[in-house]
Amino acid sequence: MKIRLVPGLLFWAITFCHFAQDSLFIRQIYDEALLRGEAYENLRQLCKQIGPRLSGSAEAEMAVNWSYEKMNAYHFDRVTKQAITVPHWERGTKESAWFKVVNSYMATQKLHLLALGGSIGTNGLLEAEVVEFKTLDALKNAKPKEVAGKIVFLNQKMDAAQIQTFKAYGACYAIRGNGAVEAGKLGAKAVVIRSLGLPIDQHPHTGSMHYEKEVPKIPAAALSTQDADALSEALTKGKVQFYLEMDCRDFPDAPSFNVMAEIKGSQNPEQIITIGGHLDSWDTGEGAHDDGAGVIHCLEALRILNTLGYQPKHTIRVVFFMNEENGNQGGQQYAKWCLANGEQHIAALESDRGGFAPRGFNLDGPDQYLSLLQSFEPALKSYDLHIFEKGYGGVDIGPLKTSYPGIPLFGFVPDSQRYFDYHHAPSDVFESVNKRELELGAAAIASFVYLLDQNIKP
Amino acid sequence: MKIRLVPGLLFWAITFCHFAQDSLFIRQIYDEALLRGEAYENLRQLCKQIGPRLSGSAEAEMAVNWSYEKMNAYHFDRVTKQAITVPHWERGTKESAWFKVVNSYMATQKLHLLALGGSIGTNGLLEAEVVEFKTLDALKNAKPKEVAGKIVFLNQKMDAAQIQTFKAYGACYAIRGNGAVEAGKLGAKAVVIRSLGLPIDQHPHTGSMHYEKEVPKIPAAALSTQDADALSEALTKGKVQFYLEMDCRDFPDAPSFNVMAEIKGSQNPEQIITIGGHLDSWDTGEGAHDDGAGVIHCLEALRILNTLGYQPKHTIRVVFFMNEENGNQGGQQYAKWCLANGEQHIAALESDRGGFAPRGFNLDGPDQYLSLLQSFEPALKSYDLHIFEKGYGGVDIGPLKTSYPGIPLFGFVPDSQRYFDYHHAPSDVFESVNKRELELGAAAIASFVYLLDQNIKP
Repeated sequence: MKIRLVPGLLFWAITFCHFAQDSLFIRQIYDEALLRGEAYENLRQLCKQIGPRLSGSAEAEMAVNWSYEKMNAYHFDRVTKQAITVPHWERGTKESAWFKVVNSYMATQKLHLLALGGSIGTNGLLEAEVVEFKTLDALKNAKPKEVAGKIVFLNQKMDAAQIQTFKAYGACYAIRGNGAVEAGKLGAKAVVIRSLGLPIDQHPHTGSMHYEKEVPKIPAAALSTQDADALSEALTKGKVQFYLEMDCRDFPDAPSFNVMAEIKGSQNPEQIITIGGHLDSWDTGEGAHDDGAGVIHCLEALRILNTLGYQPKHTIRVVFFMNEENGNQGGQQYAKWCLANGEQHIAALESDRGGFAPRGFNLDGPDQYLSLLQSFEPALKSYDLHIFEKGYGGVDIGPLKTSYPGIPLFGFVPDSQRYFDYHHAPSDVFESVNKRELELGAAAIASFVYLLDQNIKP
Repeated sequence: MKIRLVPGLLFWAITFCHFAQDSLFIRQIYDEALLRGEAYENLRQLCKQIGPRLSGSAEAEMAVNWSYEKMNAYHFDRVTKQAITVPHWERGTKESAWFKVVNSYMATQKLHLLALGGSIGTNGLLEAEVVEFKTLDALKNAKPKEVAGKIVFLNQKMDAAQIQTFKAYGACYAIRGNGAVEAGKLGAKAVVIRSLGLPIDQHPHTGSMHYEKEVPKIPAAALSTQDADALSEALTKGKVQFYLEMDCRDFPDAPSFNVMAEIKGSQNPEQIITIGGHLDSWDTGEGAHDDGAGVIHCLEALRILNTLGYQPKHTIRVVFFMNEENGNQGGQQYAKWCLANGEQHIAALESDRGGFAPRGFNLDGPDQYLSLLQSFEPALKSYDLHIFEKGYGGVDIGPLKTSYPGIPLFGFVPDSQRYFDYHHAPSDVFESVNKRELELGAAAIASFVYLLDQNIKP
């Protein structure tokens, strides 16, 4: 009886001690983030001193330098830049559109519009009749004569009834990504889409699109949701003529960098946990939520662990990835570089869903890690974290799966309800990020990384 | 074996059918709120057409009339006003303060300040030296000679490290509620407090305070957190002279109303479930989060249930309470009126924590209702609701406990992280409420009320 009881008691005593120790350290992390946090000031510098940071731009280069200096100033163990090559597209200086209901006394209506990233320009003023489709499938089913020579208007609304806003976004993604290809196949002159945003307002939301070989390239742009409604309404009144001028264009690929820093592991320094977000942003707004918040979350998490004197078992590396928005060269080249250098990677986490109040963490990886993730819940529950389930990791860390099959990837999950108010829009500025919500995100990630480092068995 | 299995199967089949039926109806509720919602437009009207609505003011009367007309326009079963009597205090037109470090070349500094609700005026310009205390206890322990003839400055910070912001607020509440009494006892000329707000900014936060018989009444006001820091800093440089002028004052009690509407119960119409918030607000900002959001949440919940043709088992009554902010006469007189009318009340819910993304519900009542509350979790989990635990109900519904001992009270719990950015401050305006977050709150409450109505056994 005694022999049986003692190991049981011992087990519980050890478990309890671990839990108490974890609780104390996590409390210190939150105190540091909320009372002496540097996240908000760092985000302000990134947004206000640099601004939007599209791959290949001067601002992206400034952001690389700022990040490198900042990481050095924090005296992390190793600060490095990984040279990569990125696409270089520029919006240009001309970008305007308007429409008119033909044969009516209605005034010409000026539109709020952004070229989609990667679009060709119009080569002067482009003018054509508009034809509207509610979905990409409806366009695919159209006959060439309905579309040829016209401007295709893809007016699919994000489903506001969808509670998970990323699912509503995913359901509309194809009109932006593939609209130009499908419209081009049918001989359209250009494609304009309804912005992928939830509010009905005047902010157009840009984002990536692509062309395909053998299909004529046509210009592609996004209208604000209010303008999309206005255009759709106008089409009920008669034939609508659309005028579009954009001088955006591609440039040769440009050199750029991922920027990274580490705290060296004390027990297994060769085993690396990567945490990061992407430093680049679209060229409108300030890339505050997407993904200024994410890189600052991870930088602050590493700063906090360092400041508290934490000696991790494994090496913890923060990576500011370049070019998530239009190519993911940063993520792809990082994963290859790690493998080529013979590095051993045991887990990665990404923050790329905005700087909102934290909700929890997703696992994108083998089921065996789900119980590990769920074992963190008791220590994090009192910090209003409640999501510990399978889901998505992140675009930048995704390629690590190819280099390291079976690696568990984790995605930080903040509240998503306001994300598509700002995503890729001029409204994604510093002021749209709440200081406290940002700090709570950094603390949640630092706490998660601590628990991961303590408990992961690769 | 068979005999045993069949009842088991039957039980599970019934449970499953109930769950499926609940799921379908809750989905309809969310669709109505998010696709055809009227909450945001109603909040806009309340905030922009009326504005702040302090008890006894012309705006409060306008808000009563607006509410009564709105409820009638929705064709609820019974729309009534309950006549009540409320305190009437006015801020007046003079309200300014500044300070100067004596015998220095530093410029006079103008302050951002709001009189606390209920404060007396200064009767012209009041001028005195400042003495700072970090807590109310420190003031209580002071000697009269340290305080007499001076202006007491209570500079207690809300604890940003506290994850539950309402707890941080509660810990500082005494400096606002009791500061004038404790300073008055020691002969102070006036009291100024650091605003009970989390951000460091220039918005002063007002709120209620009280006087006691036998203690001299002194003026009381709140400084913005930035100004509180500036004043504290100035005090490290030498003696600080403070200048204060306020002409706020009390008026005789005024007549006002609670406004309410019902959907009559189909099975037990005599058993009433009250849902509500408070219609009054402080006289700064627009009372958007506090508590425009709460009354609109509950109005929209009733509208949705009505629009979907839901026939509740019990009578569901929405109540817009008057005077939560400075007297709670609405809540107190409602509870008495219900009892005096021989009404039978079986539960109540309040929304008075802002219009942020929903997190769940608290129970303030007998333990036996906790399992009922927790039984709602499976049906609400996919709507990002995760808090189903004991906690606070609400100020307005609180007095129902006296009239109906043992009644379960429920508090709607939205995310609290941004609440004390706006609470009682000029920044609590319509634009600070996110449309989608408000709609999700209304849907969460409508769903909760549906489940409560279906499952409560009084």
